[in-house]
Amino acid sequence: REREGGRGEGTVSSFLFEYETPRQVLVRNRRVGIACRLIQLGVLGYIIGWVFIYEKGYQNEDTAIYSVFTKMKGVAYTQISGVEKVWDVSDYAFPDQGGDSFVVMTNFIITFGQTQSKCPELLSPSLLLITPFLPGHMTGKCVNTTHTCEIVTWCPVEDDRQIPNPPCLLAAENFTLFIKNSITFPEFKVDRSNLVESVDASYIKRCLYHPATDPLCPIFKLGDIVRLSGFNFTEVARVGGSIGVLIDWECDLDYSIQNCKPKYKFHGLYGSGTTGQASVGYNFRKANYYVEDKVQKRTLMKVFGLRIEVIVHGLARKFDIIPTLTAIGSGVGIFGVATVVCDLMLLHLLPKRNLYKNMKFKYTEILDGVSVPRQM
Amino acid sequence: REREGGRGEGTVSSFLFEYETPRQVLVRNRRVGIACRLIQLGVLGYIIGWVFIYEKGYQNEDTAIYSVFTKMKGVAYTQISGVEKVWDVSDYAFPDQGGDSFVVMTNFIITFGQTQSKCPELLSPSLLLITPFLPGHMTGKCVNTTHTCEIVTWCPVEDDRQIPNPPCLLAAENFTLFIKNSITFPEFKVDRSNLVESVDASYIKRCLYHPATDPLCPIFKLGDIVRLSGFNFTEVARVGGSIGVLIDWECDLDYSIQNCKPKYKFHGLYGSGTTGQASVGYNFRKANYYVEDKVQKRTLMKVFGLRIEVIVHGLARKFDIIPTLTAIGSGVGIFGVATVVCDLMLLHLLPKRNLYKNMKFKYTEILDGVSVPRQM
Amino acid sequence: REREGGRGEGTVSSFLFEYETPRQVLVRNRRVGIACRLIQLGVLGYIIGWVFIYEKGYQNEDTAIYSVFTKMKGVAYTQISGVEKVWDVSDYAFPDQGGDSFVVMTNFIITFGQTQSKCPELLSPSLLLITPFLPGHMTGKCVNTTHTCEIVTWCPVEDDRQIPNPPCLLAAENFTLFIKNSITFPEFKVDRSNLVESVDASYIKRCLYHPATDPLCPIFKLGDIVRLSGFNFTEVARVGGSIGVLIDWECDLDYSIQNCKPKYKFHGLYGSGTTGQASVGYNFRKANYYVEDKVQKRTLMKVFGLRIEVIVHGLARKFDIIPTLTAIGSGVGIFGVATVVCDLMLLHLLPKRNLYKNMKFKYTEILDGVSVPRQM
Repeated sequence: REREGGRGEGTVSSFLFEYETPRQVLVRNRRVGIACRLIQLGVLGYIIGWVFIYEKGYQNEDTAIYSVFTKMKGVAYTQISGVEKVWDVSDYAFPDQGGDSFVVMTNFIITFGQTQSKCPELLSPSLLLITPFLPGHMTGKCVNTTHTCEIVTWCPVEDDRQIPNPPCLLAAENFTLFIKNSITFPEFKVDRSNLVESVDASYIKRCLYHPATDPLCPIFKLGDIVRLSGFNFTEVARVGGSIGVLIDWECDLDYSIQNCKPKYKFHGLYGSGTTGQASVGYNFRKANYYVEDKVQKRTLMKVFGLRIEVIVHGLARKFDIIPTLTAIGSGVGIFGVATVVCDLMLLHLLPKRNLYKNMKFKYTEILDGVSVPRQM
Repeated sequence: REREGGRGEGTVSSFLFEYETPRQVLVRNRRVGIACRLIQLGVLGYIIGWVFIYEKGYQNEDTAIYSVFTKMKGVAYTQISGVEKVWDVSDYAFPDQGGDSFVVMTNFIITFGQTQSKCPELLSPSLLLITPFLPGHMTGKCVNTTHTCEIVTWCPVEDDRQIPNPPCLLAAENFTLFIKNSITFPEFKVDRSNLVESVDASYIKRCLYHPATDPLCPIFKLGDIVRLSGFNFTEVARVGGSIGVLIDWECDLDYSIQNCKPKYKFHGLYGSGTTGQASVGYNFRKANYYVEDKVQKRTLMKVFGLRIEVIVHGLARKFDIIPTLTAIGSGVGIFGVATVVCDLMLLHLLPKRNLYKNMKFKYTEILDGVSVPRQM
Repeated sequence: REREGGRGEGTVSSFLFEYETPRQVLVRNRRVGIACRLIQLGVLGYIIGWVFIYEKGYQNEDTAIYSVFTKMKGVAYTQISGVEKVWDVSDYAFPDQGGDSFVVMTNFIITFGQTQSKCPELLSPSLLLITPFLPGHMTGKCVNTTHTCEIVTWCPVEDDRQIPNPPCLLAAENFTLFIKNSITFPEFKVDRSNLVESVDASYIKRCLYHPATDPLCPIFKLGDIVRLSGFNFTEVARVGGSIGVLIDWECDLDYSIQNCKPKYKFHGLYGSGTTGQASVGYNFRKANYYVEDKVQKRTLMKVFGLRIEVIVHGLARKFDIIPTLTAIGSGVGIFGVATVVCDLMLLHLLPKRNLYKNMKFKYTEILDGVSVPRQM
């Protein structure tokens, strides 16, 4: 016996030509058998059905890097106090370069020809909005006729106590937005553009995005965007609002790359935590500076409008050997857990548990330094 | 015996009603027992304590998509060479739309009424900064009085050899910045805004961010932002600087969503690799074009200021069955490693190793084609 | 026997001082031995070679948050119909603040002194581009001399039927772009800037990016960027184009942080799906508003240029105990799969399969409620 043991160790050849396999007890018991097979079937079903088929655990993930280019089209015609005016893209879109975040003016309050001088402030509670900032610097003098004090500021002071209603540029509803989006999955070395195969030059010339009939057309009517975000156009046009245009790429690169297509989603931004509701209201002030008769002047414009943010979310998946084998490997581990559960049942719950225990285990007993392996 | 073997294979019923469990040797040896239990306890402690409790290995991760809106408030009053002037948001913030990256002007050098003509260049070493670019095109003529050569350029040439000290708009310290940030975790379908439940309309009206007392208030004093970034306000206001406002979302969605709150962090940007220290210095030039007396002119402004970048980092975690079972499965695998280590100890280090080896292993010996299973 | 079983359960001491190890059959068969060792070697090679060494499965990943600052330098000199003009950064770069996305004007069509009035539209097929938008509002009157109808619009109407060729600002080729990029790996708490250790102040003063000789210099010649993106500079300068400057950080933080360096890559953006080729063509309109003789006027500029987007992709890896042990754990699981494959071979393919089956398995047989463990 000692010799046997000696033969089993040391030499490389014996290691190479030997194969170890665990000895097993084959318990013939219907209850245990069925229970264990069911547990094992559950584990197998989970691994194959859930991890592999449903969650595609055999795939590796990669998030996209991307860039976005936008272009507005459309002209608005207004007649304010008898003055005809036309507004083109340069007049109503800020900034002009076409980035992923821009504003389309839909309403405004213009204050022409402001100069730096002294004038009485306006009587308005809205000056005490978030922090009580004066629109200028107090001179210390107060004016009887207006019941307010004189300030050094850009005069005349802007009067924004009333927002024009209906909004000046309600025609913005028919403006169109063209979005170009290019994404790259750096790990998989895949480039895609939202001008996919079916969106060719002739299609772009005549298409308009519609969620059901034209879901891939990259040209959007502003009114559609607002409506699909759950807003009312007239209300948003009057006081402004922020809208996120989400371009969602979910690509399974195990299929043809032509199936890797964007989905466009629209939602209002900046809701408060309590209601979860997106709130309307967006404005900013814009000044155009010029010199007239040697005097520095500016035209101040309080702009209400749609602030559109194009947000890109790209996620690609592709078969990879490592997640596959990790899933299989840890699946085998969970099989081991199933065995432990069945063993617990076998050795602790069944009436014949002691019989099974004796068959499963062999005990060593150390008596006075003499070891007697007991046979079962 | 052959019959027995035959009965074990083939039929489905025998597969279903049988259960295999490995036969084990139960070694009664204090040293081995304690050593192995300790190793197993260590593995178990690692899996439960580290992977599950500390690193929350039972959760899935998702990174946020987000959008940011900012709004500055505040007015500065200056008296430069006796001329009173008031600077409002349109005058000192660029760009005006309120995106996630913008500049607050704190110091400037204005050159009024530049026209395209010929004038002598300024004597300045600063023209040889990074690459020796002239601010215009040489005419070939040189001027004695200035000891420089004549160039075609916007005249008069900007004189930026001295940066105003103290900075013109030191009052910027009291300007406030309002940040709205909305995030979405696309996988978990969760939307949040930095206006969380406790930040309601009345709180926003009166709050000001303070790291200890008001950590959730989305209104920041510019002076606080600069100080919390480790800068000196007067120095940064004079020469400009870049500051990152990091909005850090770490959300455990297994708890109530109300615990998913932002943390605001501030740090200087663009340090060099050698010192790791964020460096001061940021400026750009801005031109306002106009026509006076039929001549194209521009007002050039060298703007020094705070370039603020709002950076959002959102990470959410939520219980998911797959990472849980992957962690358990690979934990079982590591248990297997513990068994291998104990076996090595048992079979190679203990004095009675040959006894254990004989108990553990059963050898097959193939002699002349006749197999004699040896009984141990 | 019952007593034995009783002794093995219940008391903590027996649990602590006992160690279970599976009993194994040691099959001495060359074919099975070699086959199984090869399978096991393959699994071991995969785990160590592929998962650990090649894919660095012992590391955790973190993606960067970042910010980008850009600055253009350079002056262009033009002589258009005898008028000398110099273009500096404020004239050709939009927007001026130096963000991660900006436009360098290389060609333009200027329409001076537009006012809101009535004038005949231009005869041009290009007005029917994507959607048939008029540049103004029809008055209903049509003009014989031009064969077009009168519209209310900014007059004179811009004539963009011919793009200047050669491009006005061909000198843009020699403009330089300076990029500062700072990244943070939030999980590893590591900050880096693209001004790495070897890029010190003196090097920046004289260096110019070159893919082979100066791959770390953060100063780029515009002509180089265009060429490295696969474009022809003259063509892109004439009609415009979009270029992505990718800053790629792949950092193994187990090595010195000084090895964490950026790689700059350049590629054309917004190709169509069909050709995969990046397409040329980028323009936008920019208006400068002013007042002359009490009349609101604007100078309209159709800008063709390079739209440069700096895109940052940062990925860091660092040793972490959890992915290491997950990899080992699932590796052990895959070892288990190897054992199953070998067992299948042993028990179903070999000629002596029934012998091995009898050695491996011990059957329980339940006869009339009396259990007779059969000895093999």
